[in-house]
Amino acid sequence: MLNIQLVQAHFVVGDIDKNTQDIIAHIHAATSAGADVVVLPELCVSGYPPEDLLNRASMYKRVAHALDTITQATGNVLALVGHPQFDNGQLYNAVSAIFNGKVLGVYRKQCLPNYGVFDEQRYFKAGTTSFCVTHKGVKMGILICEDIWEEQPIAALAAQDTQLCIVINASPFAVGKQAVRSSLLAKRAKAHNMAIAYVNLVAGQDDLVFDGGSMAVNSNGAVAVELPRFVEVTSYVEFDVAQRTFVSQKLPQKLSAEEEVYQALVVGLRSYVNFCGFKGVVLGLSGGIDSALSLAIAVDALGCKRVQAVMMPYQYTAGISMEDAALQAKRLGVSYHVIPIYNIVDATMDTLAPSFGELPPDTSEENIQARARALVLMGLSNKFNHMVLTTGNKSEMAVGYATLYGDMVGGYNALKDVYKTEVYRLAVYRNSLEPEPVIPMRVIERPPSAELRPGQTDQDSLPPYDVLDSILYHYIEKELSLDAMVALGMPAVVVKRIIGLVDRSEYKRKQAAPGVRISEKAFTRERRYPIMNGWKAGL
Amino acid sequence: MLNIQLVQAHFVVGDIDKNTQDIIAHIHAATSAGADVVVLPELCVSGYPPEDLLNRASMYKRVAHALDTITQATGNVLALVGHPQFDNGQLYNAVSAIFNGKVLGVYRKQCLPNYGVFDEQRYFKAGTTSFCVTHKGVKMGILICEDIWEEQPIAALAAQDTQLCIVINASPFAVGKQAVRSSLLAKRAKAHNMAIAYVNLVAGQDDLVFDGGSMAVNSNGAVAVELPRFVEVTSYVEFDVAQRTFVSQKLPQKLSAEEEVYQALVVGLRSYVNFCGFKGVVLGLSGGIDSALSLAIAVDALGCKRVQAVMMPYQYTAGISMEDAALQAKRLGVSYHVIPIYNIVDATMDTLAPSFGELPPDTSEENIQARARALVLMGLSNKFNHMVLTTGNKSEMAVGYATLYGDMVGGYNALKDVYKTEVYRLAVYRNSLEPEPVIPMRVIERPPSAELRPGQTDQDSLPPYDVLDSILYHYIEKELSLDAMVALGMPAVVVKRIIGLVDRSEYKRKQAAPGVRISEKAFTRERRYPIMNGWKAGL
Repeated sequence: MLNIQLVQAHFVVGDIDKNTQDIIAHIHAATSAGADVVVLPELCVSGYPPEDLLNRASMYKRVAHALDTITQATGNVLALVGHPQFDNGQLYNAVSAIFNGKVLGVYRKQCLPNYGVFDEQRYFKAGTTSFCVTHKGVKMGILICEDIWEEQPIAALAAQDTQLCIVINASPFAVGKQAVRSSLLAKRAKAHNMAIAYVNLVAGQDDLVFDGGSMAVNSNGAVAVELPRFVEVTSYVEFDVAQRTFVSQKLPQKLSAEEEVYQALVVGLRSYVNFCGFKGVVLGLSGGIDSALSLAIAVDALGCKRVQAVMMPYQYTAGISMEDAALQAKRLGVSYHVIPIYNIVDATMDTLAPSFGELPPDTSEENIQARARALVLMGLSNKFNHMVLTTGNKSEMAVGYATLYGDMVGGYNALKDVYKTEVYRLAVYRNSLEPEPVIPMRVIERPPSAELRPGQTDQDSLPPYDVLDSILYHYIEKELSLDAMVALGMPAVVVKRIIGLVDRSEYKRKQAAPGVRISEKAFTRERRYPIMNGWKAGL
Repeated sequence: MLNIQLVQAHFVVGDIDKNTQDIIAHIHAATSAGADVVVLPELCVSGYPPEDLLNRASMYKRVAHALDTITQATGNVLALVGHPQFDNGQLYNAVSAIFNGKVLGVYRKQCLPNYGVFDEQRYFKAGTTSFCVTHKGVKMGILICEDIWEEQPIAALAAQDTQLCIVINASPFAVGKQAVRSSLLAKRAKAHNMAIAYVNLVAGQDDLVFDGGSMAVNSNGAVAVELPRFVEVTSYVEFDVAQRTFVSQKLPQKLSAEEEVYQALVVGLRSYVNFCGFKGVVLGLSGGIDSALSLAIAVDALGCKRVQAVMMPYQYTAGISMEDAALQAKRLGVSYHVIPIYNIVDATMDTLAPSFGELPPDTSEENIQARARALVLMGLSNKFNHMVLTTGNKSEMAVGYATLYGDMVGGYNALKDVYKTEVYRLAVYRNSLEPEPVIPMRVIERPPSAELRPGQTDQDSLPPYDVLDSILYHYIEKELSLDAMVALGMPAVVVKRIIGLVDRSEYKRKQAAPGVRISEKAFTRERRYPIMNGWKAGL
């Protein structure tokens, strides 16, 4: 039996000293426990993704020093440590196999993803050769993340009669991703009669959440071990080389779509707020569903003592909005303040009156309300070091149904990549976790409204959210044209209007707060659209 | 003599129909004028950079239709037209050689830049072969932009006895870039005894400005023809194949660093405001140098009738700031408004008083002033469809010396990539263009201040701007470490503090307005840093 420790942990982007200490602690722990092999995630020395830190002149020295330190600290265990490798003026995404104070060899990632959220060809040169190491009688091949998504690298290992494939990863979360990963691993294992140990990073990094879910898969494709998602955990797995199987462990319960998304939102927010050193968060509670769900996420991420809720009523704020906001805050045990914005709005209107003259009211006045609330929240944030949690959902971000420098202000947005219809599903899910709902049913059931003019509802200017979200999904995630969407039975006039709104709102998204990515097409680094854009999707 | 028309023009990103019409108009004009060859810039069919529009399912159809239309419209002239090429599931950055209703051949770009502002490997597969076409007895090789920056592609053309190399480009402006281009072309021409015709795009696209400056270079490296920078122009050049030279034309005056930067700022702002359909711009005039220079740029870009200046005094606004702002506005002939912010600030302070309690004043109160001004500017912007021009310079953006949702609000920032010391140089340059200075000398000479508290100057919290900018330049543009900067003689304590500020301000830059890129390391798509960043440059 080969005893392998899978280290599913967090490593801080850029903090090479801390990562080095953590890596050594994991190696020592594995050694003490009698492990034969310890496997750490992709680029654990630099954190992932290090982005343009890789261009810094001192990165080379820091990484070299870190590797020396790690190598010297490694005794009687084979440690697989991911790191940037500088060689002959080139940079590689690499993993070193270290044993007993010596680097036995280095593998360089062959498949460099340069799509979606990934920019690896910006930094790295691709490796061109396989790498195997034989330890305690087991011939192991090592791959890095994208390598296993392609056919060739594992096929090359199989051709060398490798018994075990170890894959180190920094694989970001998206809905349903874990199921895709496990079927991929099953397919590759079966195709090449090779067992696979797959180790993933965990924790949030700006918009990305790495969800763990590390696995050990037998050569027949069966998942023998699966680590829990979204938590740091190290686990020992035992590999039987003769059978090419792992000793099975109890598998964790599969997470539903709502469960995994909710956990991603909690982890993403928690990572961001804690890393940035905020005491907590402050958010505007409107009595609506987005702020209600965001409040629950914030409390689950940080605890109720670190969350400040502020209701900022104005003349269009409904009585039930006041009641529901107060109820949510009380139910979740957070500090709750009511700060009316009449004085700020009135002073702004008075100040602008000579300029506005007799012009009729329009969205300008509505935006002033949203921006008055922003003034209050940012004032509290600056004074008390609570980050403003902004709460706009993906449907709003898509069509620009949000006020720049108004409700869009904030350091982070848990719901940024969550469509409105998913917001409802997540609210129902969160309510299901406790006997008494944390989000009042009335908030879920009443028609959504920005409450910026009398009797306003979102559906005055937008189609119903199920229709809207379906259009957005096909336009944004599937990148379909108007024609293709009409061919699917969607109404041409509505589709044309909505995609026009999406195209024209790019400037708002460019100035939006970061937020958790849960899809394959979040409004962050993976959807790169020009602001000056003459595409005219309607054509 | 081969008569070649160089088309240095603007093509709109995404607007394939308009680009197609423009391309055909250029081809027809060239035909009418009796040209043998007409050369259009890189990716003129889609505009550059098309970014993720290249992923849209309907891009393939639109481009194919455009190429058919262009091909049918092309008669007795060899047209070189840049476009995305879809072939067998792959996408290429290509140029078609079209003559008399037929595509004679297609060249695929071999060198795909994937650094700095470029993401071409995200979209394109690299071509692997040279392409030549013989027309009117001249053997021409065609290259695309990055190809000429590498050694191999032109060497391969030379090996095939090519007489003329035609390079189509979308080469963005940076200070000094034109001089680099012409010495590169001279080097390549001489090395391979080949004449080079180089055509560049012109106009702004979000943060990028394409500056034209197309050239015809003889095989001995001499620049025979150079088109003016920053303007759309088509020009005929005559090529003598026997001599491998072009008939010389009067070269335009070389632009000084200040001239070329100033023109880039003007063109970038004009392109953005006009494309986005704003009536004009509104900006806050503070009496300081940044807003003064921005005002001059706006007037030069849009004309004085499209520029609204607003002075928004508060209790810390100096009398001379009021005077100087009024003077600038009058001198430049723009509409000028004085809108005091006392009422908004007071109302906000009153509203927050119960929360702030007895806590001493800090930057929270200063930020409220900046955000009150933002409320006014955005109110005017929304009501009158004037884009807010934000005026923070690169030094401020670097160290975070700016208020999010305050002075940072706006649709575009002409000075975003201009260090404070360059702002002064540009102000002096702009003043030199007219007998009477448009920026009062007092604005240039007085110590800069944000005027957010009594007697405040920028140097209370920052080193002198020449010291600051030198530190920033070496940290940002040169990516040097603390140690390396200290070795250059910079003071360790100051450097450490400044680079700490730069690292901690990433969250502000992520929400900043776009603005003109003039360096090789602007705070836009080319400097990709994590917000959650444990790098600690001081170590």
